[in-house]
Amino acid sequence: MSELRKDLVSGRWVIIATERSKRPDDFRPSDGTARPAEPVGFCPFCEGNETKTPPEVFALRTAGTAPDSPGWKVRVVPNKFPALNRGTPPPKPTGGVFQSMEGVGVHEVVIENPDHGFELSDLPVPHIRDVFRVFQLRIKAIEQELHYQYVQLFKNKGKEAGASLSHPHSQIVATPIVPKRVKEEIYGGDRLFRNFKECAFCRILREEAAAGARQIILNRHFSVVAPYASRFPFEMAVYPLRHSPFFTDVDDAELLILAETMKQVLARLKETIGDPPYNMVLHHAPNPSLSLEGWPEIDRNYHWHLEIFPILTKVAGFEWGTGFYINPVPPETAAQFLRRS
Amino acid sequence: MSELRKDLVSGRWVIIATERSKRPDDFRPSDGTARPAEPVGFCPFCEGNETKTPPEVFALRTAGTAPDSPGWKVRVVPNKFPALNRGTPPPKPTGGVFQSMEGVGVHEVVIENPDHGFELSDLPVPHIRDVFRVFQLRIKAIEQELHYQYVQLFKNKGKEAGASLSHPHSQIVATPIVPKRVKEEIYGGDRLFRNFKECAFCRILREEAAAGARQIILNRHFSVVAPYASRFPFEMAVYPLRHSPFFTDVDDAELLILAETMKQVLARLKETIGDPPYNMVLHHAPNPSLSLEGWPEIDRNYHWHLEIFPILTKVAGFEWGTGFYINPVPPETAAQFLRRS
Repeated sequence: MSELRKDLVSGRWVIIATERSKRPDDFRPSDGTARPAEPVGFCPFCEGNETKTPPEVFALRTAGTAPDSPGWKVRVVPNKFPALNRGTPPPKPTGGVFQSMEGVGVHEVVIENPDHGFELSDLPVPHIRDVFRVFQLRIKAIEQELHYQYVQLFKNKGKEAGASLSHPHSQIVATPIVPKRVKEEIYGGDRLFRNFKECAFCRILREEAAAGARQIILNRHFSVVAPYASRFPFEMAVYPLRHSPFFTDVDDAELLILAETMKQVLARLKETIGDPPYNMVLHHAPNPSLSLEGWPEIDRNYHWHLEIFPILTKVAGFEWGTGFYINPVPPETAAQFLRRS
Repeated sequence: MSELRKDLVSGRWVIIATERSKRPDDFRPSDGTARPAEPVGFCPFCEGNETKTPPEVFALRTAGTAPDSPGWKVRVVPNKFPALNRGTPPPKPTGGVFQSMEGVGVHEVVIENPDHGFELSDLPVPHIRDVFRVFQLRIKAIEQELHYQYVQLFKNKGKEAGASLSHPHSQIVATPIVPKRVKEEIYGGDRLFRNFKECAFCRILREEAAAGARQIILNRHFSVVAPYASRFPFEMAVYPLRHSPFFTDVDDAELLILAETMKQVLARLKETIGDPPYNMVLHHAPNPSLSLEGWPEIDRNYHWHLEIFPILTKVAGFEWGTGFYINPVPPETAAQFLRRS
């Protein structure tokens, strides 16, 4: 029998389709080997090719090396084909049927390391920490420009996950409006706070730890779970135990533990289903330097987190039509495998 | 410069990314030929193999032929691996962090014609009308069981669009809850009705006809547009000109024109970008036989429609994180090509 489950915060339902149930091996490439490496031609993100990207906006570099030359560890450049361009956002449109705004925003690429062959999960923990520190620094810097209500950090790994270049990288897009998904979570968090008299995310983490069945990692600072209403097979969410809506609030000690946690998360995904394409998405509070008139109290209600999901199934007509998802792997089964590996 | 556009009804924003702008030929298979046909092995949906599906629940058949035997034109069978199973839905869950319901519902397959090689767009108009009539009949029959709040009709054509069998077919899934996407449109329609003092969809259709730039087909009964805030390249929406929230309300005369319109829509898609994989999704009112307590007035506010979009781009981390979409083909450009072909 299938089961319908509700994601409490967003109100999204999923179908856990046990009759279509699958095991991790069903998602491995059929020849049993790891997924084939993508062909490497010329790569503008590799060390030595710095002049093939737009000039860097930030880099962690060896002292004495010049911008846009070798010697960097993590490098941030504008996207060569940006979805949005820097600028002052015009006032929000009012009235009328066809509402538009100039497409202003920021679109940057964070090149995670100079070596093409090292994926995020292959890097030493201190290097992963540096990548996450660069995420924080860029988010803070963009927020201080005051033009953008939200800064979205995400990673597309592998062609199936939307990556057009295979050199390990993440992306940052800042938008002049708070995106729908984040808004839904903030309003959902507000509604639930009034009901629970506490942060809904804090409560869910406590109940997940007590239940245990979906808990994958639980350490001093972070909780990794297979979400109760997982949309996708082997979906994971990483939450800080310390309540905060701001990813930029994570301190140095916590950041090192986050890096350790992420290395484990990505390694377990690889061991369980053989290096799949995946997306990673950060959800955190809108730009704290701007005031959002009429919005609920975000500090108290919202709780930053990372979502990681391998791309193993197709989103099709049913999902597009309904916003429901059909997941053939119960999160309890996913957690069991991900804990073990 | 890119442009941000808002879908008025759902509140969803899209980025029309002109710097990444593409022409139809960029989406054609690189060898210039039509997309390769998928290999055909044994097919349970072909005429003669009726015993390889679960027993049919409905078929348009030549008089005198027996169920589950050859002689049919359109045939409806339960999905062999249903996402949901028939049954009485338990009451909605109340309270608690982990909310679930038994996965009850309906999951049927509408086999559009006995011949594997004839796609929906290849069929004569009267046959397409029969397919849409069968959609109506099945939706009505399922609604009268009173168990399900919503009946979702959709079509996945091609592997990339989520089809697991290549024989032309559509699917019907009934759910005990009104899906999020439909709920959003209904509430959005209600909000806009109070603002516009008329159905927002009716108003949009009028303004699209006046503007012309995104109009693809406009006949006596139907309007086909490239939506102003299109999420995907070459996305189309088919609306009835006569206001109605109910697809099952379409009468015989209108149904024939709908079939003609759909044949054109699918033929133009094929001519413009070479037989791409696509999804088709019906949005209409929830089950009219059930009363939805506390919901806005659906009859007045909502307007059924079909959404058709080829699968040409990948949904990636940015889309998952934000609910925004990045569309490299402005709908005005898409409409220009789709009108011409």
